[in-house]
Amino acid sequence: MKKLLDDPANAVVDSLAGFGLAHADVVTVHTDPPYVTRAGGRVAGKVGLVSGGGSGHEPLHAGFVGDGMLDAAVPGAVFTSPTPDQILPAVQAADAGAGVLAIVKNYTGDVLNFETAVELAEAEGVEVASVLVNDDVAVEDSLYTAGRRGVAGTVCVEKIAGAAAARGDDLSAVTAVANRVVANVRSMGVALTACTVPHVGKPSFDLGDDEIEIGIGIHGEPGRHRVPVAPAGEITRRLLDPVADDLRLQTGERVLLLVNGMGGTPLSELYVVYGRARGLLEERGVTVSRSLVGNYVTSLEMQGVSLTVLRLDDELERLWDAPVHTAALRW
Amino acid sequence: MKKLLDDPANAVVDSLAGFGLAHADVVTVHTDPPYVTRAGGRVAGKVGLVSGGGSGHEPLHAGFVGDGMLDAAVPGAVFTSPTPDQILPAVQAADAGAGVLAIVKNYTGDVLNFETAVELAEAEGVEVASVLVNDDVAVEDSLYTAGRRGVAGTVCVEKIAGAAAARGDDLSAVTAVANRVVANVRSMGVALTACTVPHVGKPSFDLGDDEIEIGIGIHGEPGRHRVPVAPAGEITRRLLDPVADDLRLQTGERVLLLVNGMGGTPLSELYVVYGRARGLLEERGVTVSRSLVGNYVTSLEMQGVSLTVLRLDDELERLWDAPVHTAALRW
Repeated sequence: MKKLLDDPANAVVDSLAGFGLAHADVVTVHTDPPYVTRAGGRVAGKVGLVSGGGSGHEPLHAGFVGDGMLDAAVPGAVFTSPTPDQILPAVQAADAGAGVLAIVKNYTGDVLNFETAVELAEAEGVEVASVLVNDDVAVEDSLYTAGRRGVAGTVCVEKIAGAAAARGDDLSAVTAVANRVVANVRSMGVALTACTVPHVGKPSFDLGDDEIEIGIGIHGEPGRHRVPVAPAGEITRRLLDPVADDLRLQTGERVLLLVNGMGGTPLSELYVVYGRARGLLEERGVTVSRSLVGNYVTSLEMQGVSLTVLRLDDELERLWDAPVHTAALRW
Repeated sequence: MKKLLDDPANAVVDSLAGFGLAHADVVTVHTDPPYVTRAGGRVAGKVGLVSGGGSGHEPLHAGFVGDGMLDAAVPGAVFTSPTPDQILPAVQAADAGAGVLAIVKNYTGDVLNFETAVELAEAEGVEVASVLVNDDVAVEDSLYTAGRRGVAGTVCVEKIAGAAAARGDDLSAVTAVANRVVANVRSMGVALTACTVPHVGKPSFDLGDDEIEIGIGIHGEPGRHRVPVAPAGEITRRLLDPVADDLRLQTGERVLLLVNGMGGTPLSELYVVYGRARGLLEERGVTVSRSLVGNYVTSLEMQGVSLTVLRLDDELERLWDAPVHTAALRW
């Protein structure tokens, strides 16, 4: 295993420490237990936003803590849910008197641990709502999930709910817009290579030299099928069609198109896929009015890409466009 | 070869097309010959900034076209210098009456082709100055270079000269500050894996399963030595010490620290290296007052990292902090 790490067992805390130093103007990293909050502290009267999940998907979630997005993020061990005792102080830190929305990707461990932490927080008087992100259309049920997995659509939920909270929406309104994003966002990914969890030391799965896996999960969970490597246009179609069909996209609609790298794919290839996906959407009469291309929800050094499509309306566009200042997303 | 491409021979133009569509608010992509300009067109009376070089290093250079940075960028074929007939229209497009600064990385092909294009532009009445970036301390002379190679320090030159041009400095002042950055910036990189040029189809060099190459070039040119894979702290020291020594950094100085991923390395590992490099600088009594961590000057899907240190003063800090709005850098 070749990785830029010291003790693989400390990979997450070592990385968080560097992250905190590099972005001290935006975040504060807490270490015992590990969680991340906004550097500026609570914003009085604002609904707090908390998310979290296994590490290995950076910049998700800690990279999205800051003005206009998350108030706190909770990183578990690599590909492992954070524990309730990590989540609880993050929820408490995010509470500025207007309640907290927990944004949870649909993995069984995340769901259970967030539920436990939310109960503990509520017992201490914090009002907490939750939203479950399950945008991956590849498979129903999976290695760590009952129902669909939550993947890169999470970025859309965190950005848009974050903007709603920042403009002063109350907890029920922020929760409603987060659920509206969940209802209108779908994703699907492909892996060209596997990835290696540091403390395991060998690839999570085997993929032949000429083989790719369509519908891969962000932890390397099995997808729909393995196929021979194919041109970008064909791979893009195999991702975009299920996403667009599941959304029942109609001619005349407009969308946000997120082309997300899995960590080890060059940016230049992501733009090739973006061009192809945009062409396929235009063939359907769908306009891409907002775009995001880059590594946002990764799987360590995996080579691959996921496509996320979010159906937009004026309100969602406005919230997407609202200012954001985090380590990984800024405008 | 597994890549998200259609015809490998069209990799650069396909990628540029997607890039142009995704960032139509920031850039305009020209195709015959290929070069990239600001979407808003010339800014009357402002010094124009042009850079370019082989593709495969994305987001460099096209990702840095926009307000506060470059006016035009010229992408060659992968790891191949752009031709004079590509560079000339980019220089002309960047000329808004106050002259143009060409920022050139020190590779023989880039130097010669920019020289030819500059002569042609001057013959047509455009005033052009050039600055040569040669920040890589790893080796003197190399596969494609006489003297030191230009690597990630280029981002510092483009950002700071771009800010000087944006505030209205004249050509000699913009050139002077660009040269001051060159004089105060040094870099060195390491490769954990090789990369594969699309139209070649096999890795550019061989690296053993437990071997890394210290001092690698961004085209996979040989570095200083191959060593067994080592902990991040040790690798970081082998990069940071030559950089800091070459800069003759003194206790009490302050610097910008850029930890640059080579394309295939997870962000989490870059933050581990950032933390280690910062610790080593602090041991020397040097303060890191500005930071940048991410994939900025890459080598396709190569796994590895480079460290860049720029000695700062009030003026350079102010120019670094000035607003920038490009596809890859925005604040």
